[in-house]
Amino acid sequence: MAVATQTFADRLAAEVERKRSQLVVGLDPNVDLMPVELRGDVARFCCGLVDAVAPHAVAVKPQLAFFETLGPAGMAAFDQVCAYARRAGLLVIAAGERGDIGSTARAYCEAYLEGDLPRAHALTVNPYLGRESVEPYLAAARRHGAGIFVLVKTSNAGADVQDVVLKDGRPMWHHVASLVAEWGADLVGDGGLSAVGAVVGATHPRAVADARRLMPQAIMLLPGVGAQGGSVSDLVRAFQSGPASALVNASRSVNYAYRESGGDYREAAGAEAARLKREIWAASGW
Amino acid sequence: MAVATQTFADRLAAEVERKRSQLVVGLDPNVDLMPVELRGDVARFCCGLVDAVAPHAVAVKPQLAFFETLGPAGMAAFDQVCAYARRAGLLVIAAGERGDIGSTARAYCEAYLEGDLPRAHALTVNPYLGRESVEPYLAAARRHGAGIFVLVKTSNAGADVQDVVLKDGRPMWHHVASLVAEWGADLVGDGGLSAVGAVVGATHPRAVADARRLMPQAIMLLPGVGAQGGSVSDLVRAFQSGPASALVNASRSVNYAYRESGGDYREAAGAEAARLKREIWAASGW
Repeated sequence: MAVATQTFADRLAAEVERKRSQLVVGLDPNVDLMPVELRGDVARFCCGLVDAVAPHAVAVKPQLAFFETLGPAGMAAFDQVCAYARRAGLLVIAAGERGDIGSTARAYCEAYLEGDLPRAHALTVNPYLGRESVEPYLAAARRHGAGIFVLVKTSNAGADVQDVVLKDGRPMWHHVASLVAEWGADLVGDGGLSAVGAVVGATHPRAVADARRLMPQAIMLLPGVGAQGGSVSDLVRAFQSGPASALVNASRSVNYAYRESGGDYREAAGAEAARLKREIWAASGW
Repeated sequence: MAVATQTFADRLAAEVERKRSQLVVGLDPNVDLMPVELRGDVARFCCGLVDAVAPHAVAVKPQLAFFETLGPAGMAAFDQVCAYARRAGLLVIAAGERGDIGSTARAYCEAYLEGDLPRAHALTVNPYLGRESVEPYLAAARRHGAGIFVLVKTSNAGADVQDVVLKDGRPMWHHVASLVAEWGADLVGDGGLSAVGAVVGATHPRAVADARRLMPQAIMLLPGVGAQGGSVSDLVRAFQSGPASALVNASRSVNYAYRESGGDYREAAGAEAARLKREIWAASGW
Protein backbone atom coordinates (compact mmCIF):
# COMPACT_ATOMS: atom_id res chain seq x y z
CA MET A 1 0.00 0.00 0.00
CA ALA A 2 1.30 3.41 -0.87
CA VAL A 3 2.07 5.70 2.04
CA ALA A 4 0.34 9.04 1.75
CA THR A 5 3.31 11.35 2.20
CA GLN A 6 2.90 15.10 1.97
CA THR A 7 5.01 16.50 -0.86
CA PHE A 8 7.96 18.71 -0.04
CA ALA A 9 6.34 21.62 -1.84
CA ASP A 10 3.04 21.37 0.07
CA ARG A 11 4.83 21.07 3.37
CA LEU A 12 6.95 24.09 2.56
CA ALA A 13 3.95 26.10 1.38
CA ALA A 14 2.16 25.43 4.68
CA GLU A 15 5.17 26.74 6.60
CA VAL A 16 5.46 29.80 4.36
CA GLU A 17 1.80 30.69 5.02
CA ARG A 18 2.06 29.98 8.75
CA LYS A 19 5.21 32.04 9.30
CA ARG A 20 4.59 34.54 6.52
CA SER A 21 8.20 33.96 5.57
CA GLN A 22 10.14 32.94 2.48
CA LEU A 23 13.50 33.17 4.19
CA VAL A 24 16.03 30.34 4.20
CA VAL A 25 19.05 30.83 6.43
CA GLY A 26 22.21 29.14 5.20
CA LEU A 27 24.45 27.74 7.92
CA ASP A 28 28.07 28.33 6.88
CA PRO A 29 30.13 27.79 10.01
CA ASN A 30 33.38 29.50 9.13
CA VAL A 31 35.64 29.17 12.16
CA ASP A 32 37.48 32.41 11.33
CA LEU A 33 34.28 34.48 11.52
CA MET A 34 32.64 32.92 14.58
CA PRO A 35 32.70 34.39 18.07
CA VAL A 36 36.06 33.38 19.53
CA GLU A 37 34.51 31.49 22.45
CA LEU A 38 32.60 29.18 20.08
CA ARG A 39 35.35 28.35 17.61
CA GLY A 40 35.82 24.91 19.12
CA ASP A 41 32.11 24.09 18.97
CA VAL A 42 30.54 24.43 15.54
CA ALA A 43 27.42 22.51 16.56
CA ARG A 44 26.75 24.91 19.43
CA PHE A 45 27.29 27.93 17.15
CA CYS A 46 24.84 26.56 14.58
CA CYS A 47 22.24 25.49 17.14
CA GLY A 48 22.38 29.02 18.52
CA LEU A 49 21.65 30.31 15.03
CA VAL A 50 18.77 27.83 14.69
CA ASP A 51 17.20 29.11 17.93
CA ALA A 52 17.61 32.68 16.78
CA VAL A 53 16.16 32.30 13.29
CA ALA A 54 13.49 29.63 13.86
CA PRO A 55 10.66 32.17 14.33
CA HIS A 56 11.61 34.00 11.13
CA ALA A 57 12.85 31.42 8.61
CA VAL A 58 11.06 28.46 7.02
CA ALA A 59 14.23 26.46 6.49
CA VAL A 60 17.92 26.29 7.19
CA LYS A 61 20.46 25.27 4.61
CA PRO A 62 23.58 23.82 6.22
CA GLN A 63 26.49 23.85 3.77
CA LEU A 64 28.15 20.44 3.97
CA ALA A 65 31.56 21.72 2.89
CA PHE A 66 32.01 23.70 6.09
CA PHE A 67 31.23 20.65 8.20
CA GLU A 68 33.35 18.26 6.12
CA THR A 69 36.34 20.53 6.61
CA LEU A 70 36.20 19.53 10.26
CA GLY A 71 36.40 15.80 9.55
CA PRO A 72 34.30 13.13 11.30
CA ALA A 73 33.59 15.49 14.22
CA GLY A 74 32.25 18.00 11.72
CA MET A 75 29.92 15.41 10.25
CA ALA A 76 28.71 14.56 13.73
CA ALA A 77 28.03 18.28 14.22
CA PHE A 78 26.16 18.33 10.90
CA ASP A 79 23.88 15.52 12.08
CA GLN A 80 23.33 17.24 15.41
CA VAL A 81 22.47 20.57 13.75
CA CYS A 82 20.06 18.95 11.26
CA ALA A 83 18.24 17.12 14.06
CA TYR A 84 18.11 20.28 16.17
CA ALA A 85 16.67 22.29 13.28
CA ARG A 86 14.00 19.66 12.57
CA ARG A 87 12.97 19.71 16.22
CA ALA A 88 12.76 23.51 16.02
CA GLY A 89 10.17 23.08 13.24
CA LEU A 90 12.46 24.14 10.43
CA LEU A 91 12.81 22.41 7.10
CA VAL A 92 16.38 21.35 6.34
CA ILE A 93 17.91 21.80 2.89
CA ALA A 94 21.33 20.12 2.80
CA ALA A 95 23.65 22.04 0.49
CA GLY A 96 25.91 19.45 -1.05
CA GLU A 97 25.89 20.49 -4.72
CA ARG A 98 26.34 16.84 -5.66
CA GLY A 99 26.08 15.33 -9.10
CA ASP A 100 26.62 11.59 -9.29
CA ILE A 101 25.22 8.62 -11.09
CA GLY A 102 23.85 5.18 -10.40
CA SER A 103 24.85 3.58 -7.14
CA THR A 104 26.67 6.73 -6.01
CA ALA A 105 23.62 8.96 -6.39
CA ARG A 106 21.58 6.33 -4.59
CA ALA A 107 24.12 6.36 -1.76
CA TYR A 108 23.70 10.13 -1.39
CA CYS A 109 19.96 9.79 -1.39
CA GLU A 110 20.18 7.22 1.33
CA ALA A 111 22.64 9.33 3.29
CA TYR A 112 20.52 12.48 3.33
CA LEU A 113 16.92 11.94 2.30
CA GLU A 114 15.94 8.41 3.28
CA GLY A 115 15.77 6.20 6.35
CA ASP A 116 13.46 6.45 9.34
CA LEU A 117 14.58 9.95 10.21
CA PRO A 118 16.21 11.57 7.16
CA ARG A 119 18.84 14.18 7.95
CA ALA A 120 17.34 16.63 5.48
CA HIS A 121 14.06 17.36 3.69
CA ALA A 122 15.75 18.49 0.50
CA LEU A 123 19.15 18.55 -1.16
CA THR A 124 20.90 20.75 -3.72
CA VAL A 125 21.96 18.86 -6.86
CA ASN A 126 24.26 19.63 -9.80
CA PRO A 127 22.74 18.93 -13.25
CA TYR A 128 25.88 18.26 -15.32
CA LEU A 129 25.36 14.48 -15.25
CA GLY A 130 21.84 14.72 -16.63
CA ARG A 131 18.56 13.03 -15.88
CA GLU A 132 20.12 9.72 -14.87
CA SER A 133 21.88 11.46 -11.97
CA VAL A 134 18.61 12.98 -10.76
CA GLU A 135 16.50 9.79 -10.96
CA PRO A 136 17.28 8.52 -7.45
CA TYR A 137 16.22 11.89 -6.00
CA LEU A 138 12.99 11.85 -8.00
CA ALA A 139 12.31 8.41 -6.53
CA ALA A 140 12.97 9.80 -3.04
CA ALA A 141 10.60 12.65 -3.77
CA ARG A 142 7.90 10.17 -4.75
CA ARG A 143 8.41 7.80 -1.84
CA HIS A 144 9.48 10.03 1.01
CA GLY A 145 8.22 13.48 0.11
CA ALA A 146 11.78 14.77 -0.36
CA GLY A 147 12.69 17.77 -2.48
CA ILE A 148 15.67 18.81 -4.60
CA PHE A 149 17.00 22.11 -5.83
CA VAL A 150 18.91 21.80 -9.08
CA LEU A 151 21.69 24.32 -9.70
CA VAL A 152 20.46 26.20 -12.76
CA LYS A 153 21.96 29.71 -12.80
CA THR A 154 24.33 30.21 -9.91
CA SER A 155 25.03 33.45 -8.10
CA ASN A 156 28.67 33.54 -9.17
CA ALA A 157 29.79 34.46 -12.64
CA GLY A 158 29.82 30.85 -13.94
CA ALA A 159 29.19 32.37 -17.34
CA ASP A 160 31.89 30.34 -19.07
CA VAL A 161 29.67 27.28 -18.75
CA GLN A 162 26.11 28.39 -17.89
CA ASP A 163 25.86 31.17 -20.47
CA VAL A 164 27.34 29.30 -23.43
CA VAL A 165 25.01 29.80 -26.39
CA LEU A 166 23.31 26.74 -27.84
CA LYS A 167 22.49 26.02 -31.46
CA ASP A 168 18.92 27.25 -30.90
CA GLY A 169 20.19 30.59 -29.55
CA ARG A 170 19.37 29.95 -25.88
CA PRO A 171 22.00 30.07 -23.14
CA MET A 172 22.92 26.69 -21.66
CA TRP A 173 21.16 27.43 -18.37
CA HIS A 174 17.83 27.93 -20.16
CA HIS A 175 18.18 24.37 -21.43
CA VAL A 176 18.88 23.16 -17.89
CA ALA A 177 15.85 25.12 -16.66
CA SER A 178 13.63 23.35 -19.18
CA LEU A 179 15.05 20.00 -18.03
CA VAL A 180 14.17 20.94 -14.44
CA ALA A 181 10.59 21.70 -15.52
CA GLU A 182 10.44 18.33 -17.28
CA TRP A 183 11.99 16.34 -14.41
CA GLY A 184 9.54 17.88 -11.95
CA ALA A 185 6.39 17.71 -14.07
CA ASP A 186 4.90 14.63 -12.42
CA LEU A 187 5.94 15.59 -8.88
CA VAL A 188 3.63 18.56 -8.45
CA GLY A 189 1.80 18.84 -5.13
CA ASP A 190 -1.72 20.06 -4.33
CA GLY A 191 -0.51 23.65 -4.25
CA GLY A 192 0.78 23.51 -7.84
CA LEU A 193 4.46 23.49 -6.99
CA SER A 194 6.91 20.70 -7.78
CA ALA A 195 9.37 18.75 -5.60
CA VAL A 196 12.01 19.64 -8.18
CA GLY A 197 13.14 23.20 -7.53
CA ALA A 198 15.93 25.33 -8.91
CA VAL A 199 18.79 27.43 -7.58
CA VAL A 200 18.86 30.77 -9.38
CA GLY A 201 21.24 33.50 -8.24
CA ALA A 202 19.52 36.62 -6.89
CA THR A 203 22.48 38.47 -8.37
CA HIS A 204 20.87 38.19 -11.83
CA PRO A 205 17.40 39.83 -11.61
CA ARG A 206 16.67 39.38 -15.32
CA ALA A 207 17.59 35.70 -15.13
CA VAL A 208 15.15 35.33 -12.23
CA ALA A 209 12.29 36.50 -14.45
CA ASP A 210 13.38 34.17 -17.30
CA ALA A 211 13.69 31.31 -14.84
CA ARG A 212 10.11 31.86 -13.58
CA ARG A 213 8.82 31.68 -17.13
CA LEU A 214 10.82 28.54 -17.98
CA MET A 215 9.97 26.72 -14.74
CA PRO A 216 6.48 27.87 -13.71
CA GLN A 217 6.05 25.10 -11.13
CA ALA A 218 9.54 25.08 -9.63
CA ILE A 219 10.32 26.50 -6.22
CA MET A 220 13.23 28.87 -6.80
CA LEU A 221 15.94 29.05 -4.18
CA LEU A 222 17.59 32.44 -4.56
CA PRO A 223 21.05 32.87 -3.05
CA GLY A 224 23.19 35.94 -3.39
CA VAL A 225 21.19 38.48 -1.36
CA GLY A 226 23.25 40.40 1.15
CA ALA A 227 26.94 39.56 1.17
CA GLN A 228 26.94 38.83 -2.59
CA GLY A 229 25.11 42.02 -3.55
CA GLY A 230 21.67 40.85 -4.73
CA SER A 231 18.69 43.01 -3.80
CA VAL A 232 15.36 41.67 -2.50
CA SER A 233 13.33 44.28 -4.38
CA ASP A 234 14.54 42.85 -7.71
CA LEU A 235 13.04 39.45 -6.98
CA VAL A 236 9.28 40.03 -7.21
CA ARG A 237 8.98 38.07 -10.48
CA ALA A 238 10.24 34.95 -8.75
CA PHE A 239 7.08 34.87 -6.60
CA GLN A 240 4.62 34.91 -9.49
CA SER A 241 3.70 31.25 -8.95
CA GLY A 242 2.63 31.82 -5.34
CA PRO A 243 3.99 32.92 -1.97
CA ALA A 244 5.97 29.67 -1.61
CA SER A 245 7.24 29.64 -5.17
CA ALA A 246 10.52 31.29 -4.22
CA LEU A 247 12.78 31.24 -1.20
CA VAL A 248 15.46 33.78 -0.51
CA ASN A 249 18.64 32.38 0.98
CA ALA A 250 20.90 34.48 3.17
CA SER A 251 23.92 32.96 4.86
CA ARG A 252 26.84 35.13 5.86
CA SER A 253 24.77 38.28 6.38
CA VAL A 254 22.74 36.43 9.05
CA ASN A 255 25.36 34.06 10.48
CA TYR A 256 27.81 36.85 11.11
CA ALA A 257 25.47 39.82 11.57
CA TYR A 258 27.05 40.42 15.00
CA ARG A 259 30.28 41.46 13.30
CA GLU A 260 28.47 44.52 11.93
CA SER A 261 26.07 45.22 14.77
CA GLY A 262 28.09 44.04 17.74
CA GLY A 263 26.45 42.25 20.65
CA ASP A 264 25.40 38.63 20.97
CA TYR A 265 25.65 36.70 17.69
CA ARG A 266 22.24 35.07 18.22
CA GLU A 267 20.46 38.37 18.87
CA ALA A 268 22.14 39.91 15.83
CA ALA A 269 21.24 36.91 13.64
CA GLY A 270 17.63 36.91 14.87
CA ALA A 271 17.24 40.64 14.24
CA GLU A 272 18.69 40.37 10.73
CA ALA A 273 16.52 37.32 9.93
CA ALA A 274 13.39 39.16 11.17
CA ARG A 275 14.28 42.18 9.06
CA LEU A 276 14.93 40.08 5.93
CA LYS A 277 11.74 38.08 6.41
CA ARG A 278 9.63 41.25 6.46
CA GLU A 279 11.51 42.79 3.54
CA ILE A 280 11.10 39.65 1.41
CA TRP A 281 7.42 39.18 2.28
CA ALA A 282 6.73 42.77 1.29
CA ALA A 283 8.73 42.47 -1.94
CA SER A 284 6.99 39.20 -2.85
CA GLY A 285 3.71 41.05 -3.19
CA TRP A 286 1.69 38.48 -1.18
CA MET B 1 60.33 31.76 -0.96
CA ALA B 2 58.45 29.34 -3.15
CA VAL B 3 58.37 25.75 -1.97
CA ALA B 4 59.53 23.34 -4.65
CA THR B 5 56.63 20.89 -4.63
CA GLN B 6 56.49 18.08 -7.17
CA THR B 7 53.42 18.46 -9.35
CA PHE B 8 50.66 15.90 -9.13
CA ALA B 9 51.27 14.87 -12.74
CA ASP B 10 55.01 14.30 -12.27
CA ARG B 11 54.45 12.32 -9.10
CA LEU B 12 51.83 10.19 -10.82
CA ALA B 13 54.04 9.67 -13.88
CA ALA B 14 56.87 8.40 -11.67
CA GLU B 15 54.51 5.87 -10.08
CA VAL B 16 53.14 4.79 -13.45
CA GLU B 17 56.68 4.08 -14.71
CA ARG B 18 57.73 2.35 -11.51
CA LYS B 19 54.73 0.04 -11.31
CA ARG B 20 54.13 -0.18 -15.04
CA SER B 21 50.49 0.45 -14.20
CA GLN B 22 47.78 2.92 -15.19
CA LEU B 23 45.17 1.32 -12.97
CA VAL B 24 43.12 3.26 -10.42
CA VAL B 25 40.96 1.18 -8.13
CA GLY B 26 37.79 2.88 -6.97
CA LEU B 27 36.75 2.10 -3.40
CA ASP B 28 32.94 1.85 -3.35
CA PRO B 29 32.10 0.15 -0.06
CA ASN B 30 28.55 -1.04 -0.67
CA VAL B 31 27.45 -2.87 2.45
CA ASP B 32 25.09 -5.13 0.48
CA LEU B 33 27.91 -6.50 -1.68
CA MET B 34 30.62 -6.95 0.96
CA PRO B 35 31.53 -10.22 2.61
CA VAL B 36 28.99 -10.72 5.40
CA GLU B 37 31.60 -10.81 8.16
CA LEU B 38 32.90 -7.33 7.20
CA ARG B 39 29.60 -5.50 6.83
CA GLY B 40 30.09 -3.78 10.17
CA ASP B 41 33.60 -2.59 9.32
CA VAL B 42 33.89 -0.60 6.12
CA ALA B 43 37.40 0.63 6.98
CA ARG B 44 38.67 -2.92 7.40
CA PHE B 45 37.07 -3.97 4.11
CA CYS B 46 38.69 -1.06 2.26
CA CYS B 47 42.09 -1.47 3.91
CA GLY B 48 41.98 -5.12 2.82
CA LEU B 49 41.39 -3.91 -0.74
CA VAL B 50 44.27 -1.44 -0.42
CA ASP B 51 46.64 -4.23 0.64
CA ALA B 52 45.45 -6.39 -2.23
CA VAL B 53 45.73 -3.81 -5.00
CA ALA B 54 48.73 -1.74 -3.84
CA PRO B 55 51.25 -3.72 -5.97
CA HIS B 56 49.08 -3.33 -9.09
CA ALA B 57 47.42 0.09 -8.95
CA VAL B 58 48.93 3.60 -8.90
CA ALA B 59 46.01 5.13 -7.03
CA VAL B 60 42.79 4.41 -5.20
CA LYS B 61 39.70 6.51 -5.63
CA PRO B 62 37.46 6.32 -2.55
CA GLN B 63 33.94 7.44 -3.39
CA LEU B 64 32.83 9.82 -0.65
CA ALA B 65 29.13 9.06 -1.08
CA PHE B 66 29.53 5.51 0.19
CA PHE B 67 31.30 6.73 3.30
CA GLU B 68 28.91 9.63 3.94
CA THR B 69 26.00 7.19 3.90
CA LEU B 70 27.43 5.79 7.12
CA GLY B 71 27.45 9.14 8.92
CA PRO B 72 30.31 10.41 11.10
CA ALA B 73 31.64 6.86 11.56
CA GLY B 74 31.79 6.56 7.78
CA MET B 75 33.80 9.76 7.52
CA ALA B 76 36.19 8.46 10.18
CA ALA B 77 36.53 5.32 8.05
CA PHE B 78 37.20 7.51 5.00
CA ASP B 79 40.06 9.26 6.81
CA GLN B 80 41.45 5.95 8.01
CA VAL B 81 41.34 4.43 4.51
CA CYS B 82 42.98 7.49 2.89
CA ALA B 83 45.80 7.44 5.43
CA TYR B 84 46.24 3.69 5.01
CA ALA B 85 46.41 4.02 1.23
CA ARG B 86 48.99 6.81 1.44
CA ARG B 87 51.15 4.67 3.71
CA ALA B 88 50.84 1.82 1.19
CA GLY B 89 52.42 4.14 -1.40
CA LEU B 90 49.21 4.77 -3.33
CA LEU B 91 48.01 8.13 -4.58
CA VAL B 92 44.54 9.01 -3.32
CA ILE B 93 41.92 10.57 -5.59
CA ALA B 94 38.87 11.56 -3.53
CA ALA B 95 35.73 11.17 -5.61
CA GLY B 96 33.41 13.88 -4.42
CA GLU B 97 32.09 15.27 -7.70
CA ARG B 98 31.79 18.67 -6.06
CA GLY B 99 31.09 21.97 -7.71
CA ASP B 100 30.95 24.99 -5.43
CA ILE B 101 32.03 28.57 -5.37
CA GLY B 102 33.92 31.02 -3.24
CA SER B 103 34.24 30.17 0.41
CA THR B 104 32.54 26.81 -0.08
CA ALA B 105 35.01 25.63 -2.69
CA ARG B 106 37.80 26.87 -0.46
CA ALA B 107 36.36 24.82 2.40
CA TYR B 108 36.43 21.68 0.24
CA CYS B 109 40.01 22.38 -0.77
CA GLU B 110 40.96 22.74 2.84
CA ALA B 111 39.06 19.60 3.77
CA TYR B 112 40.69 17.35 1.21
CA LEU B 113 43.81 18.81 -0.39
CA GLU B 114 45.45 21.10 2.15
CA GLY B 115 46.86 21.01 5.65
CA ASP B 116 49.96 19.25 6.93
CA LEU B 117 48.78 15.84 5.79
CA PRO B 118 46.10 16.24 3.13
CA ARG B 119 43.60 13.39 2.98
CA ALA B 120 43.90 13.14 -0.79
CA HIS B 121 46.32 14.01 -3.58
CA ALA B 122 43.55 14.86 -6.03
CA LEU B 123 39.80 15.44 -6.16
CA THR B 124 37.07 15.06 -8.78
CA VAL B 125 35.29 18.34 -9.58
CA ASN B 126 32.07 19.24 -11.42
CA PRO B 127 32.48 22.05 -14.00
CA TYR B 128 28.93 23.47 -14.07
CA LEU B 129 29.87 26.47 -11.89
CA GLY B 130 32.69 27.50 -14.20
CA ARG B 131 36.21 28.78 -13.70
CA GLU B 132 35.47 30.60 -10.45
CA SER B 133 34.57 27.29 -8.82
CA VAL B 134 37.84 25.71 -9.95
CA GLU B 135 40.13 28.58 -8.86
CA PRO B 136 40.70 27.37 -5.27
CA TYR B 137 41.76 23.96 -6.61
CA LEU B 138 44.14 25.57 -9.09
CA ALA B 139 45.66 27.45 -6.17
CA ALA B 140 46.02 24.17 -4.25
CA ALA B 141 47.67 22.63 -7.29
CA ARG B 142 50.16 25.49 -7.39
CA ARG B 143 50.90 25.55 -3.67
CA HIS B 144 50.59 21.93 -2.61
CA GLY B 145 51.07 19.88 -5.77
CA ALA B 146 47.44 18.76 -5.72
CA GLY B 147 45.52 17.58 -8.77
CA ILE B 148 41.93 17.71 -9.96
CA PHE B 149 39.90 15.72 -12.41
CA VAL B 150 37.08 17.72 -13.96
CA LEU B 151 33.99 15.78 -15.04
CA VAL B 152 33.91 16.30 -18.80
CA LYS B 153 32.09 13.39 -20.46
CA THR B 154 30.76 10.96 -17.89
CA SER B 155 30.33 7.23 -18.33
CA ASN B 156 26.54 7.39 -17.96
CA ALA B 157 24.24 8.63 -20.65
CA GLY B 158 24.24 12.28 -19.40
CA ALA B 159 23.55 13.21 -22.99
CA ASP B 160 20.68 15.55 -22.14
CA VAL B 161 23.23 18.04 -20.77
CA GLN B 162 26.71 17.05 -21.99
CA ASP B 163 25.80 16.43 -25.62
CA VAL B 164 23.63 19.51 -26.16
CA VAL B 165 24.78 21.17 -29.38
CA LEU B 166 26.28 24.65 -29.14
CA LYS B 167 25.96 27.50 -31.60
CA ASP B 168 29.33 26.60 -33.13
CA GLY B 169 28.19 23.01 -33.74
CA ARG B 170 30.23 21.39 -30.95
CA PRO B 171 28.64 19.35 -28.18
CA MET B 172 28.66 21.01 -24.74
CA TRP B 173 31.30 18.65 -23.39
CA HIS B 174 33.78 19.73 -26.08
CA HIS B 175 33.44 23.25 -24.72
CA VAL B 176 34.08 21.98 -21.19
CA ALA B 177 37.10 20.03 -22.48
CA SER B 178 38.56 23.20 -23.97
CA LEU B 179 38.00 24.99 -20.64
CA VAL B 180 39.88 22.18 -18.89
CA ALA B 181 42.80 22.62 -21.29
CA GLU B 182 42.76 26.36 -20.59
CA TRP B 183 42.49 26.01 -16.79
CA GLY B 184 45.41 23.59 -16.75
CA ALA B 185 47.68 25.37 -19.22
CA ASP B 186 49.98 26.96 -16.65
CA LEU B 187 50.04 23.95 -14.33
CA VAL B 188 52.01 21.61 -16.57
CA GLY B 189 54.76 19.56 -14.92
CA ASP B 190 58.18 18.54 -16.23
CA GLY B 191 56.66 15.52 -17.96
CA GLY B 192 54.30 17.65 -20.04
CA LEU B 193 51.11 16.74 -18.19
CA SER B 194 48.89 19.15 -16.28
CA ALA B 195 47.53 19.08 -12.72
CA VAL B 196 44.09 19.64 -14.26
CA GLY B 197 42.84 16.31 -15.58
CA ALA B 198 39.52 15.16 -16.95
CA VAL B 199 37.03 12.38 -16.33
CA VAL B 200 35.99 10.83 -19.64
CA GLY B 201 33.84 7.70 -19.68
CA ALA B 202 35.51 4.63 -21.16
CA THR B 203 32.05 3.72 -22.40
CA HIS B 204 32.45 6.25 -25.27
CA PRO B 205 35.60 5.21 -27.25
CA ARG B 206 35.13 7.88 -29.91
CA ALA B 207 34.75 10.56 -27.23
CA VAL B 208 38.03 9.38 -25.68
CA ALA B 209 39.84 10.11 -28.95
CA ASP B 210 38.18 13.54 -29.24
CA ALA B 211 39.03 14.30 -25.62
CA ARG B 212 42.70 13.50 -26.20
CA ARG B 213 42.78 15.92 -29.12
CA LEU B 214 41.00 18.69 -27.17
CA MET B 215 43.07 18.26 -23.99
CA PRO B 216 46.55 17.12 -25.08
CA GLN B 217 48.11 17.79 -21.66
CA ALA B 218 45.32 16.51 -19.42
CA ILE B 219 45.52 13.23 -17.55
CA MET B 220 42.34 11.40 -18.45
CA LEU B 221 40.63 9.36 -15.78
CA LEU B 222 38.57 6.74 -17.57
CA PRO B 223 35.78 5.09 -15.58
CA GLY B 224 33.28 2.64 -17.00
CA VAL B 225 35.53 -0.37 -17.73
CA GLY B 226 34.20 -3.66 -16.41
CA ALA B 227 30.83 -3.41 -14.67
CA GLN B 228 29.71 -0.56 -16.97
CA GLY B 229 30.75 -2.31 -20.21
CA GLY B 230 33.72 -0.25 -21.46
CA SER B 231 36.56 -2.19 -23.08
CA VAL B 232 40.27 -1.55 -22.41
CA SER B 233 41.25 -2.24 -26.01
CA ASP B 234 39.21 0.77 -27.16
CA LEU B 235 41.23 3.18 -25.06
CA VAL B 236 44.62 3.28 -26.80
CA ARG B 237 44.07 6.85 -28.10
CA ALA B 238 43.82 8.11 -24.53
CA PHE B 239 47.48 7.23 -23.96
CA GLN B 240 48.84 9.23 -26.88
CA SER B 241 50.29 11.90 -24.58
CA GLY B 242 52.43 9.38 -22.67
CA PRO B 243 52.11 6.34 -20.42
CA ALA B 244 50.76 8.44 -17.54
CA SER B 245 48.40 10.49 -19.70
CA ALA B 246 45.45 8.23 -18.92
CA LEU B 247 44.31 6.18 -15.96
CA VAL B 248 41.71 3.47 -16.13
CA ASN B 249 39.39 3.31 -13.16
CA ALA B 250 37.74 0.06 -12.11
CA SER B 251 35.64 -0.09 -8.97
CA ARG B 252 32.97 -2.75 -8.60
CA SER B 253 34.73 -5.32 -10.82
CA VAL B 254 37.72 -5.24 -8.44
CA ASN B 255 35.99 -4.54 -5.10
CA TYR B 256 33.56 -7.40 -5.53
CA ALA B 257 35.58 -9.76 -7.77
CA TYR B 258 35.11 -12.49 -5.12
CA ARG B 259 31.42 -12.63 -5.95
CA GLU B 260 32.32 -14.01 -9.38
CA SER B 261 35.40 -16.01 -8.52
CA GLY B 262 34.60 -17.15 -4.99
CA GLY B 263 37.33 -17.31 -2.32
CA ASP B 264 38.81 -14.52 -0.25
CA TYR B 265 37.76 -11.03 -1.36
CA ARG B 266 41.31 -9.68 -1.13
CA GLU B 267 42.80 -12.45 -3.22
CA ALA B 268 40.07 -12.03 -5.81
CA ALA B 269 40.55 -8.23 -5.88
CA GLY B 270 44.33 -8.59 -6.15
CA ALA B 271 44.05 -11.07 -9.01
CA GLU B 272 41.58 -8.89 -10.91
CA ALA B 273 43.72 -5.77 -10.35
CA ALA B 274 46.83 -7.61 -11.59
CA ARG B 275 44.96 -8.82 -14.66
CA LEU B 276 43.59 -5.35 -15.44
CA LYS B 277 46.96 -3.69 -14.91
CA ARG B 278 48.59 -6.00 -17.50
CA GLU B 279 45.69 -5.64 -19.93
CA ILE B 280 45.75 -1.84 -19.71
CA TRP B 281 49.53 -1.57 -20.00
CA ALA B 282 49.46 -3.74 -23.11
CA ALA B 283 46.57 -1.77 -24.62
CA SER B 284 48.27 1.56 -23.86
CA GLY B 285 51.04 0.68 -26.32
CA TRP B 286 53.88 1.75 -23.97
